Amino acid sequence: MEDIIKVAARSRTTAVAGAIAGVVRESDRANVQAIGAGAVNQAVKACAIARGYLEEDGINVIVIPIFVEVMIGDQERTAMRLIVEPR
Amino acid sequence: MEDIIKVAARSRTTAVAGAIAGVVRESDRANVQAIGAGAVNQAVKACAIARGYLEEDGINVIVIPIFVEVMIGDQERTAMRLIVEPR
Repeated sequence: MEDIIKVAARSRTTAVAGAIAGVVRESDRANVQAIGAGAVNQAVKACAIARGYLEEDGINVIVIPIFVEVMIGDQERTAMRLIVEPR
Repeated sequence: MEDIIKVAARSRTTAVAGAIAGVVRESDRANVQAIGAGAVNQAVKACAIARGYLEEDGINVIVIPIFVEVMIGDQERTAMRLIVEPR
């Protein structure tokens, strides 16, 4: 089971980007998850910033966006999962 | 100069996904652009749906998110550009 980087609407994009870059360097792939427009927006911006960080290390990452169903309390919600991995 | 698929917060995700899939089939790459959280959210969802459409054609697309500066009237705004192309 891989760890998931959960992003909220108030998450700082550079902090999330740093986490993404760290996980990609260590385990080759990061799973980023967000629910709702504000959170998805922060997550995508963080991926763009992380691309820059990883390019400096010669790592060219791409994003694969997929829908996942998650349980929040007793409610099923659709989350956006952004898989970040080397091309 | 490649065409840009502009996405708004009120854009229908399946319509945008259809446009993305069509452009990728024809010209191998689609440029999707959104400004603001609502629009970026719709754009990412459309990319996830387009991935499904294109998988049916045996095309595995990935997303490269980058920031671009655009002029809206006389104001410079930062847009999110999502480049969708085969892996």
